[in-house]
Order: sequence, then structure tokens, then C-alpha cells
Amino acid sequence: MLAVKISSGEASTFEAPKPRPRAGHTLLRLRLAGICNTDIELLRGYYGFSGVPGHEFVADVVQASDPKWIGKRVVGEINLACGKCESCLAKMGRHCPRRTVLGIVNHPGAFAEFLTLPEVNLRAVPKDIPDEHAVFTEPIAAACEILEQIRFPKGATVAVLGDGKLGLLIAQVLRINQLHVHLFGRNPGKLSIVKPMGISTRLIPREQPKLPKAEYTYVVDATGSAKGFEHALDLVKPRGTIVMKSTVAEPLTIDAARCIVNEISLIGSRCGRFEPAIRLLKSKQLMLDPLISNRFPLREATSALEHAQQPGVLKVLLDPAL
Amino acid sequence: MLAVKISSGEASTFEAPKPRPRAGHTLLRLRLAGICNTDIELLRGYYGFSGVPGHEFVADVVQASDPKWIGKRVVGEINLACGKCESCLAKMGRHCPRRTVLGIVNHPGAFAEFLTLPEVNLRAVPKDIPDEHAVFTEPIAAACEILEQIRFPKGATVAVLGDGKLGLLIAQVLRINQLHVHLFGRNPGKLSIVKPMGISTRLIPREQPKLPKAEYTYVVDATGSAKGFEHALDLVKPRGTIVMKSTVAEPLTIDAARCIVNEISLIGSRCGRFEPAIRLLKSKQLMLDPLISNRFPLREATSALEHAQQPGVLKVLLDPAL
Repeated sequence: MLAVKISSGEASTFEAPKPRPRAGHTLLRLRLAGICNTDIELLRGYYGFSGVPGHEFVADVVQASDPKWIGKRVVGEINLACGKCESCLAKMGRHCPRRTVLGIVNHPGAFAEFLTLPEVNLRAVPKDIPDEHAVFTEPIAAACEILEQIRFPKGATVAVLGDGKLGLLIAQVLRINQLHVHLFGRNPGKLSIVKPMGISTRLIPREQPKLPKAEYTYVVDATGSAKGFEHALDLVKPRGTIVMKSTVAEPLTIDAARCIVNEISLIGSRCGRFEPAIRLLKSKQLMLDPLISNRFPLREATSALEHAQQPGVLKVLLDPAL
Repeated sequence: MLAVKISSGEASTFEAPKPRPRAGHTLLRLRLAGICNTDIELLRGYYGFSGVPGHEFVADVVQASDPKWIGKRVVGEINLACGKCESCLAKMGRHCPRRTVLGIVNHPGAFAEFLTLPEVNLRAVPKDIPDEHAVFTEPIAAACEILEQIRFPKGATVAVLGDGKLGLLIAQVLRINQLHVHLFGRNPGKLSIVKPMGISTRLIPREQPKLPKAEYTYVVDATGSAKGFEHALDLVKPRGTIVMKSTVAEPLTIDAARCIVNEISLIGSRCGRFEPAIRLLKSKQLMLDPLISNRFPLREATSALEHAQQPGVLKVLLDPAL
């Protein structure tokens, strides 16, 4: 089968043996995959990654021990948990210390014609959700995770920093949940995408950005940069909360005294449950089509990964059928 | 009057004019002051401080516009707030952006025979609380603040890192609130102080410290060091909470990816309300006498500040009557 690999900071396609699912695992045939910023970070050496990347996908079940799955169109939770430890028993397999992670940690990813996942990880995709939307399930779940970690007061105002793919999804998810959202970003085109949803946008110039000081009780940092985190610290009120949403590969130097004196809460936030994301997709309230910049054949994944790093580009999809 | 000043990283005593309280302010005669680690940090150049330090005190009211205060024995909230801004109107004057802070930011401190504070900052000390205990009100309030920021489940286990003055107070306050406390520290003598209260203690050797990994849902860092914060990150479970309690003057470099992947919450925590602290002092449940290492005459404040920096020394008091 055709697969993509990252090794020593380079991406390439290669002919890999079709994977043979272990007991309890299923064999999936890829329908569509999405390139996430994490994939770009992996390519840049984050985690010292070597292997098949890809964790945003929609696929058909080809092989499964429970016949009810065969032929189903599915998405899949990306953390493969042991099922036995304290975290797993607390239904928090996403934090299982023995987990592998699809396309990120010791489990070959979705940038391949076939992939494997445990049956317990699969979620059926309702008929009326097209592949192009279902492929967003994982990042939407990550956006929804914020709502599971923080109980926002009804109608609260939240500043979201970053107009990348994740920032645009987070802004939408919060807005749909009746919060007032101020989205800060550098790209007028990207910001304008979500304006029709009633999201208020703020353009930050790259040179001498001027941000309001101590104006928000809630700030979500989805910039993926140390600079963005500094902006978040500027924006947040004393006793306020910053949700750290983006994977920043570089170490962050924080002014601890400032966080302590102002009693700021910093909340790390990663993956979320798929169920709320699928419900949201079914409700058709999200604007996803404008987030798709391009669709490449899977065999052109190296060009796709390059394209995904260009300024202004949002979601790039990989299609094995093209 | 006799007063202490810090200037260019040196402490000295000097003859200062007796302060004249502004409208709404009271004149207080010092009974006893306590040296806090923050005072040591000020001496080391933190905040570029220059002036009269000292914010832990008990005093008598000499002059006040409301006669009910005259002659009262009092402690005082250290933040002098504007009373008009959004923070103040939300009863959060401790975060007033225009505040001055007794002995820390633009308001002469308590290491002097006389000091001034607004009437609204004063809290009367109940008769049965001796000066030697009342002088702990401010750091006890800082310890109690944790309970206002975090709703611990009943009987939860909390790791407290640091067996300094603040760590020992925090451990006690949490224990009195029916939490299980594991206190980590480097000094067997200090650790043994709080053992009789049912606090479980863990000695961390300075060389090659071995800490349990990911074992606590709640960790309080009261070490005042970047190393201590690293230990806190080792101890905390995924989805756990670290309370950042100590003022670390040095910038902290944090592995943001680790905080995000493990969805850790970092909660900055500073001053607290005095009322819960005074209630706790009245209840006589705290062990404070073993925390007092020495009492110096106020005129020997420079020696006292030096002594307070010696290893193994806990609270050093300054007494104007000696």
C-alpha cells in the first residue's frame, strides 16, 4: 500500500506492507486525511518522530472482530490506551501513561491507504456528515475539550488568540455555545471567515502589535508560539484563565512572578472526546468548507505537507482516491 | 522614629520622620513584625525595591478618623486599593491595578516604629490571640487563599513542596481542612515540626532527589525555586493541578508541551483575605510557636535580615520594645 513517512525531518511516500490488525484491532481503508499543525511540528523534529504520521481521518472498516463494524464509515479516537490503569478505569484513556498515539507516538498513522485502530476507538460517522467535514472530528473534539475543562459563566466573553485552523475552530465552538468571542489574528482573510457567525475579530499587526491590557477573564492561546503566549498574558485580567491549547514545541519562559502576583490560571488542554464533536458536526452549525484550502492526492503528500506550511493556507486534505 | 530601609541591595536602620496619615488612613504603632521570604527577595533586588520593607505585623492604632479604632490592636491587609475600579467593586482590591502594597510597592512598610494604613485595611485582633501568633495573619491568609481558589474533594491528598515558613503553614492549613497532606522538604528538623498534626512528610535529598512520578492530583509548590517547580511537574498526575504559591524571582522556563499534553492546570496564588486567617488563629489549631526561630530588636533589623537567610532558620521577628 501507499504510505507517507517522516524520517530525519524529511517526508516521503513509500510502498509499505498492508498492516495486519492485532486482536481487538480493526483494519481501516482511508477515505480522507487532514494535515494538522502537529504533523508539521513532527516534520520539524518535534518528539524526534520517525514513522507514518497522520491522526485526522475518516475511513471505512475493512476488517473487525465484531462484524457490526464491517463496511461502516468511521472516525477514531487517536489515543490507544491500555484499558487497565487508573487513568483508563477513570474513563481518561487519553491520559493512559502506556498509551500509543495514532501517527504521533508508536502507532502508524493515517497518512496511508490502510491503518489499524482498536475497535473501542472507532466512532461511526452519521450518514449526513460528508467526509470533508468528518475529517475535522479530531480537532473539533480538541476545541470542545475546553468546555469540559472550564465552566464558563453564561454569555461570558472569551478572547481567542490565533487565526489558524485550530483557533478558527475554537472560536466557532465557543460561539455556538453562546459565548462572546473576540478572535485575535494576523490574517484579515482568515479572520473574515468566522465573522458571519457573530464572532468579533481583531487584527494584530506583526510589527508593534498593540493589545488591550488585562481586559479578558478568559483567554485561549491557539497561536502555537511563545510570542502568542506572551500576548495571552497581556490580555488576561488578574485572577483570569489562559487555556494553553496549541502544542508549542519550543520551551516557554514564563514570568512566574507575574502569574503568581496576578493569580492567573494556566490550563493545559489537548485532545477531547469525539461524541460532542460528532453531535456538533451533525448540527451543521460549523463553517468548515472555508477552512479547507486544498485537497491533494495521497501520493503527493510531500507537496501537500509543503503547501500546508505556506502562509495563509488552512486545512490541507489527503485523498487516496485522487 | 526608628525605621529600616533597603536601598541598592543593602539594609540599614535610620531615623525617619514619623509618618503623617492621609485622610482615611490611620497611624499605627508597631508591636511586632515578621520577616517574610519576600523581604529577603526585596533585599536581593527583586522589584528593584528601595524603601521601608515589611508587611507582616501587629500594631496598635494611635490615630484614626473613626474613634472606634483608637487603641485597638490590629493587623492589616497589605494591598492599598483605589476602591473605585472594576477589581475593587468586585471586592478584589488585592488585584486593584492602581494599588500600592505595604512594604513592597510604593507604601512604606512595617519595619518601623510607626506605619500608616487605610482604615478599611485594618482587622481587629481578638484578645486571646497573642502578638506572636497575630503576626502570622498575613502568611496564614496567603495559605488560606488556596482553599478559595480550588475546591478540593473531601479528604483529597495534596502534596506540598517546600518546608520553609510558607510551606509549613500551607501544610497545616490544608490538614486542618481535613485534607491528607504529604509535605516534601529537605530539612528533617523543619519537616518534623508538623508531623504531630497528622501530616505525612517526605525527605528529598539535595543530591539526586527521587520523587514519585505522576502521583498527585494536587500539588502546591512553596519552594520558591525553579527546581521546585520542576519537581511539582514530576509529582503531578495528568489533568492535575499545581498551585504556584511562592514568589520565584527568577524567570521559569516551562516545558509547555508537557503541561499541554498532560492537561495540567497551573494556578498562581498570592495574598488572601484576613478573615479566615483570624478565625483559624482564634481556633488555636495551628502550631506557630515552633515556626519562630528568633526575635530581634527592631534596631538590629540588619542582623535579623542576615540571620533570616541562614539555612534552617524559620520566622524571625522584629520587636520595637526590645
